[in-house]
Amino acid sequence: MADFKYEIVEHIGTLSESAKGWTKELNRISWNGGEPKYDIRDWAPEHEKMGKGVTLSEDEMAKLKDLL
Amino acid sequence: MADFKYEIVEHIGTLSESAKGWTKELNRISWNGGEPKYDIRDWAPEHEKMGKGVTLSEDEMAKLKDLL
Repeated sequence: MADFKYEIVEHIGTLSESAKGWTKELNRISWNGGEPKYDIRDWAPEHEKMGKGVTLSEDEMAKLKDLL
Repeated sequence: MADFKYEIVEHIGTLSESAKGWTKELNRISWNGGEPKYDIRDWAPEHEKMGKGVTLSEDEMAKLKDLL
């Protein structure tokens, strides 16, 4: 997989934690130095691994908020 | 990749649409006949392909709502 850089600019909250200590989190993440985006994904206990997830722009997050 | 079945039980809404017609959607999906779960992911125009995404339980979605 291509190498990439990421920075968790803001940890907004944890949605759940699995028995194995993996956490599903809502964060704002800057990918490869880009503009931070909302991000919902699973993380290993020490954040040493990340699972599949989804990034959401400001507009997408605003729309999601409307739908909930 | 292992074969799996899914059914979009409820299309709740579309968060965005890309220039290529892919849509980022919030749905409730039953995977392999299981209990429907919330699901945020990208879909090809005719839903013939799905992108990476995240599934959320009722509790996780409630927590996400609190955080927004």
